[in-house]
Amino acid sequence: MAISVILGHPDKSSFNHAIASTVVSTLRELSYQVNFHDLYQEGFDPILPAQDLDRDVALPYDIKKHCDQIASAEGIVIIHPNWWGQPPAILKGWIDRVIRPGVAYEFLGGINGEGVPHGLLKAKTGLVFTTSNTYLKRELEVFGDPLETIWKYCILGLCGVKEFYRRQFGVVVTSTLDQRERWLEETVDIVTRNFSRQVEIEDNDTDSLGEPI
Amino acid sequence: MAISVILGHPDKSSFNHAIASTVVSTLRELSYQVNFHDLYQEGFDPILPAQDLDRDVALPYDIKKHCDQIASAEGIVIIHPNWWGQPPAILKGWIDRVIRPGVAYEFLGGINGEGVPHGLLKAKTGLVFTTSNTYLKRELEVFGDPLETIWKYCILGLCGVKEFYRRQFGVVVTSTLDQRERWLEETVDIVTRNFSRQVEIEDNDTDSLGEPI
Repeated sequence: MAISVILGHPDKSSFNHAIASTVVSTLRELSYQVNFHDLYQEGFDPILPAQDLDRDVALPYDIKKHCDQIASAEGIVIIHPNWWGQPPAILKGWIDRVIRPGVAYEFLGGINGEGVPHGLLKAKTGLVFTTSNTYLKRELEVFGDPLETIWKYCILGLCGVKEFYRRQFGVVVTSTLDQRERWLEETVDIVTRNFSRQVEIEDNDTDSLGEPI
Repeated sequence: MAISVILGHPDKSSFNHAIASTVVSTLRELSYQVNFHDLYQEGFDPILPAQDLDRDVALPYDIKKHCDQIASAEGIVIIHPNWWGQPPAILKGWIDRVIRPGVAYEFLGGINGEGVPHGLLKAKTGLVFTTSNTYLKRELEVFGDPLETIWKYCILGLCGVKEFYRRQFGVVVTSTLDQRERWLEETVDIVTRNFSRQVEIEDNDTDSLGEPI
């Protein structure tokens, strides 16, 4: 059991990388095992080949490993820039290839794939951090912020992840160092709030009905 | 001047390919020059490299060619399956790499990219054909159909393409041959309706004020 952290951004010096680094270190401080994937760094191939449309195909080793990790993850964190109301292609390809039927969902009531999907992911919580150079008001009013729908309903909701939280930071391109530092502090808070384990209080065998010693 | 037709589907025997073939032949019958790109067939690389984030970078030859074609196209037709409320990664990468600032849009009122985008595409009309295995009612009510927003507002609208029409065919996986033939007839109608040129009526030098000869 671990938490999967998936990052899709081409520039190692990007604020997306700073968010990912903060997420990973915060999770480790909370004593989680972390499976971190910087998709650009590992050269992830986003092209779903025709043969992989067959649900029973033998998957390439690296895709199979991604599938096994996401299927068993106890939490999922996604980090990417908002490019055209969608993730960059490398992360879209990770979705296309890894969030597969039989791994992340199955169909009920239709043998050919036209049925209602049923989620198979074990993760209870999905966090999505996005960055943008569009003001939020414009993103909502002009573009309708499709990333919210995509991650909340089309992907994580469909796959059975019930708790969802997304934070879009912006405008990044004109932000000051101070602003970005505050955003990283907020990232620590969001991760801590969503992934703090319940601390078990020791009982010390006291019995509320007994006499105090 | 030509119409650009962009297809993103891995399987040559797919209904998406049948739609694309119908679109291309209909446009040619209407006497248009067509720039057709089957992105899988041409091995399009969807990964935007970090250096291409620089607006003034020298682009690779194939990307430059895509940019020149889309910038000058008098119409645009996109064909792809609905995968997670988004296009497949290969087509998402075409968007990331080809729909560039300086090619498809520019920013007004902000020198760093935080300003309001202004469309640069010459195309007046954009058609989008998508295929789905989800019933339309469910697509709209549960998933919110993000593809409509993405193509209409986030991409084509932002880049200055004023006329927009989208048709999603489905459920494809359980459709009959008859149904698919009717969908292809509808495709011919949609393309013809949107791209029929105005026929100029010859005047023959008649003068309504003169005497009939």
